[in-house]
Amino acid sequence: MFKAVVYVTLRESVLDPQGHAVKGALNTLGFDEVKNVRIGKYMELELGTNDRAQAEERVREMCEKLLANTVVEDYRFEIVEG
Amino acid sequence: MFKAVVYVTLRESVLDPQGHAVKGALNTLGFDEVKNVRIGKYMELELGTNDRAQAEERVREMCEKLLANTVVEDYRFEIVEG
Repeated sequence: MFKAVVYVTLRESVLDPQGHAVKGALNTLGFDEVKNVRIGKYMELELGTNDRAQAEERVREMCEKLLANTVVEDYRFEIVEG
Repeated sequence: MFKAVVYVTLRESVLDPQGHAVKGALNTLGFDEVKNVRIGKYMELELGTNDRAQAEERVREMCEKLLANTVVEDYRFEIVEG
């Protein structure tokens, strides 16, 4: 059984208002060393499959179709045992 | 300059309705091999500091105070060059 770990992040060129707000909050709390914050999504998918190559292909398809909005987001993933 | 990469996930014992919805959507799209989905947050913090040990201590404090709700969430982080 494999597990897919998927990271979805905003593209560099896209503004991240949530990250900006978190940066402001951290600075207000005294964490002045924080210069920039970018926020993304982290997903763990349990897969009922034993074929790693097939899992990679299927997870790529899931990212393209549902998990990421590829107009404004990038994604990357790892297939791990588990 | 260091960068902190922070992962915030719901604790195992906490229900994840967003993950449940994504699992349902993936199954509906024909990805029947997806047995469970857990969704968390992924954050990248640019730090204006050159002291790795201090960065670790400060980022732990940021997680405890703001980035994670430790009642229902776990966090882990890495300090990387960047």
